[in-house]
Amino acid sequence: MWYHTVFSELVNTKYPMVQAPMAGIGTPALAGTVSECGLLGSMGCAEMTVPQLYDTALTLREITDAPFNLNFFAHSEPDSYHQVDSALIEALTPLYEKHSLPFPKVPLSAENTSFTEEKLKAVLEIKPKVISFHFGLPDTHAIDALRNVGCLILCSATTVDEAVYLEKRGVDAIIAQGWEAGGHRGSFKVNNSDAGIGTMALVPQIVDKVRLPVIAAGGIGDGRGIAAAMLLGASGVQMGSAFLGCPETALPEAYATAIRQALETDTRLTRGFSGRPARAQQNLYTRSFLDQSFKLPNFPLMYEYSEPLIDVSTANGDDKYAYHLYGQAASLNRGLPASQFIEGLINEVNKLLNR
Amino acid sequence: MWYHTVFSELVNTKYPMVQAPMAGIGTPALAGTVSECGLLGSMGCAEMTVPQLYDTALTLREITDAPFNLNFFAHSEPDSYHQVDSALIEALTPLYEKHSLPFPKVPLSAENTSFTEEKLKAVLEIKPKVISFHFGLPDTHAIDALRNVGCLILCSATTVDEAVYLEKRGVDAIIAQGWEAGGHRGSFKVNNSDAGIGTMALVPQIVDKVRLPVIAAGGIGDGRGIAAAMLLGASGVQMGSAFLGCPETALPEAYATAIRQALETDTRLTRGFSGRPARAQQNLYTRSFLDQSFKLPNFPLMYEYSEPLIDVSTANGDDKYAYHLYGQAASLNRGLPASQFIEGLINEVNKLLNR
Repeated sequence: MWYHTVFSELVNTKYPMVQAPMAGIGTPALAGTVSECGLLGSMGCAEMTVPQLYDTALTLREITDAPFNLNFFAHSEPDSYHQVDSALIEALTPLYEKHSLPFPKVPLSAENTSFTEEKLKAVLEIKPKVISFHFGLPDTHAIDALRNVGCLILCSATTVDEAVYLEKRGVDAIIAQGWEAGGHRGSFKVNNSDAGIGTMALVPQIVDKVRLPVIAAGGIGDGRGIAAAMLLGASGVQMGSAFLGCPETALPEAYATAIRQALETDTRLTRGFSGRPARAQQNLYTRSFLDQSFKLPNFPLMYEYSEPLIDVSTANGDDKYAYHLYGQAASLNRGLPASQFIEGLINEVNKLLNR
Repeated sequence: MWYHTVFSELVNTKYPMVQAPMAGIGTPALAGTVSECGLLGSMGCAEMTVPQLYDTALTLREITDAPFNLNFFAHSEPDSYHQVDSALIEALTPLYEKHSLPFPKVPLSAENTSFTEEKLKAVLEIKPKVISFHFGLPDTHAIDALRNVGCLILCSATTVDEAVYLEKRGVDAIIAQGWEAGGHRGSFKVNNSDAGIGTMALVPQIVDKVRLPVIAAGGIGDGRGIAAAMLLGASGVQMGSAFLGCPETALPEAYATAIRQALETDTRLTRGFSGRPARAQQNLYTRSFLDQSFKLPNFPLMYEYSEPLIDVSTANGDDKYAYHLYGQAASLNRGLPASQFIEGLINEVNKLLNR
């Protein structure tokens, strides 16, 4: 059967399919249901406090005994941001003035979304079957400690070089994140020249250069995408936007509407929300960053500038400044409860691959 | 068998595979051999004179009796370019000064690469089995005339909307050109906000919205990519860069070296060579356009600025300013003669799809 792969054996799931962690969007109801259905459910934990981490794990384990994945951002702590780029202020001023918002004061501050020692300690106690990282890996001390308690470690790569590096660092599987994927690019370094490798090109080139199982991510929205990824040499797939149609995600209405009406052309890569490149719905806010090379505050300090405007759109229920992360195949979502959606996916792949 | 598809039946080839037209790079030796092997060989004819068109068809027919494809650019004639963007001149001045090159004089001039009445007349006499267009379609008069002599008409689409438009205009098959593809984007309109839909996302979304056969293009480099594209719902594939490793292309040495050593991260979309977005090897020249939103001369007038520098690199055999078009999966090329390369591809897909 197509679903018996090195990856599904490794993580001990029936299907080699990961529901992408979607920090701030995913819910334990979604991740738990997905895991209970034999896939690997994930929670995006980067923005959680330590008590929230314990709560999340507890809730997941009330829903399912199956393996799940906790996901974190591995980024260095942001520099304080004193030197404000006047072009950035100039671009934002009309929007801030229109809504009578005060400009954030420098130095900016933000929740620490990096993988801190306290979060490590909590994960070592929680012992999830799988932990995954985005933006690279934390230091060796953390990796060793996680391995010692039996956690499997996954990490995203957006290039062959990143994948080769991850294999050297001893991860258990590599998520090959293609250009199509919604949300933050997993690229280790942020620069103005993201090569933007599409999934179709990225997966086979990574597969050829590492021995580890490779999980294809980006642009996979239904059984056709899953089957295609497996034939590219992937040992599994990760899907995010496809699950945004499931009622378990409990999206705000404007976000849910965007997903229901999604077009392949909706999104662009933008650094305008967080300071790191992320694929989000193009709107009035992202357009104010288009083709500009502002010097932006480091991730996640840029949220200090974007959040007041995001809040305006949230209050108004519109998407002018909304932070709607999704990928280029979001239109393929079905608007079905997770378990029904998954059943449909499996049937589609069965038909395509077990002829 | 996987290769009996609506598309292969339509164009009367054994395999539903198109060798991409690569204007200025492809050769009749390559296209003819490819057609003789049961695929659809293509010649990029946009830059040819009418006598060259007749010559090309004659040479192809000496090599093969099989169907082939002649490809043209469907773009409006360029406006004269009088208003020079000072930022563009500023960016190019150091490069021009370094090589003591005189700046091109405005108004600029260029070979007419559009699908002129004379070219139409020649094609109507040549009667290729297939004609394909990039940058949209020529007017109804041309389309009707081509259909009347029995030409099948193909055209590239980079979005669902473009595909739906092409179906309405009466083309016979749609080439879904993903972000990964080398060379010019087929987008009808040029703007600064190309959504850049990856092949994995684009193909199924187009397949769902048109009844015509869809040819997947972009990031397909070997049997894995072909098999994956077929499972995404494509009726065939188009591959370009993969054929650049074949000796029949007769690439200049620096270009051949770039292809032999290609990495997935080599290329970027740039308007710096022709004035239209094209995926090319990133180099000193393309970097001078990075993140800049210069007002550039219309396609193909921008060549007046790029060609003097391209010529410097051609003379030096380096790639500083070279015009090396290729896609994100070029590294998968095999450096084999076309017939051997094709045999390998077919064997790979047979193994993947006829298990």
